[in-house]
Amino acid sequence: MTYEVELKFRLPDNQFVLVRLDELGAVAGASQIQVDQYLAHPVRDFATTDEALRIRSIGDGNRITYKGPVIDRATKTRLESELTFQSGPTAAEQFAQIWEHLGFRRVRVVRKTRQLYSLRWQDRDLEICLDQVDGLGAFLEIETLADEAEKTAAQQTILALARELQLSEPEQRSYLEMLLETDRS
Amino acid sequence: MTYEVELKFRLPDNQFVLVRLDELGAVAGASQIQVDQYLAHPVRDFATTDEALRIRSIGDGNRITYKGPVIDRATKTRLESELTFQSGPTAAEQFAQIWEHLGFRRVRVVRKTRQLYSLRWQDRDLEICLDQVDGLGAFLEIETLADEAEKTAAQQTILALARELQLSEPEQRSYLEMLLETDRS
Repeated sequence: MTYEVELKFRLPDNQFVLVRLDELGAVAGASQIQVDQYLAHPVRDFATTDEALRIRSIGDGNRITYKGPVIDRATKTRLESELTFQSGPTAAEQFAQIWEHLGFRRVRVVRKTRQLYSLRWQDRDLEICLDQVDGLGAFLEIETLADEAEKTAAQQTILALARELQLSEPEQRSYLEMLLETDRS
Repeated sequence: MTYEVELKFRLPDNQFVLVRLDELGAVAGASQIQVDQYLAHPVRDFATTDEALRIRSIGDGNRITYKGPVIDRATKTRLESELTFQSGPTAAEQFAQIWEHLGFRRVRVVRKTRQLYSLRWQDRDLEICLDQVDGLGAFLEIETLADEAEKTAAQQTILALARELQLSEPEQRSYLEMLLETDRS
């Protein structure tokens, strides 16, 4: 089993972090528009169990992602399982309808522009995402994948990098949670 | 919405039907081994609602299929929605595990060798499957796809072809249902 270990921070000002990432040797990767259709379980409250199920579309590419309950609140360590499926917007809509037939409901679409960076730091490959989320603003996510044995070490590395970037007060809520709170207020 | 209209018959002796299909101009297509992992819904009894959800693997190819409730018992007309997803046995197993995380259960694997035939008959494209099902024996399925407006005409064509093949007493149960009954007895 592979675990996604990640931390997310609100970025009031992107400049310092971008300069610091450059100094540390981060390499800019793709910039992409991600459209996520989140789904609700027919009888289980994902907000309570802290799970997530979503259809992500990046251009014509589609994937289905299940995120298991968070194991470690500090770094949002959780089981993540993702599969690509048939491409194109028609297939994405068709899959959403299959979930609806099974009693799942469409909760909300989260749309963001994501600029990817990769950074080899402290002997670990980190993926860094600068996200511009519709309706929420800018965030930085630091993420790495680790198996069971490496989980604690991965968490330490991410926490150390966050200090380097003078980032504190990690945002524990998902973009979906934040947007639902915004919708309600 | 596309509907699958189909009839299925047990074949005690394949020979007459194969000769008759040849006379009618049926064209033999691929022969493939299909491995279907059927899934049960966390709170809905698919046996009662007459729905089905399965992961089908043909070689390395994977697809997820949802079948809606049967609308017409005589021809098993129903909504069918199918999508391909990431190929390979590891992806098929990973998707089965995602369904399990969501509370679905693995019911049973149905394994069969399917010989496909295509037949243009009475101005309609028919797909005919000669199935050799592990644990059940040989069956012939006659199937066509039709939209809402063409459904009745499609049913009439299939029933007429069945008479040509001297097939009667269609088998209403799915292979899964038959196998589960066999398992229980």
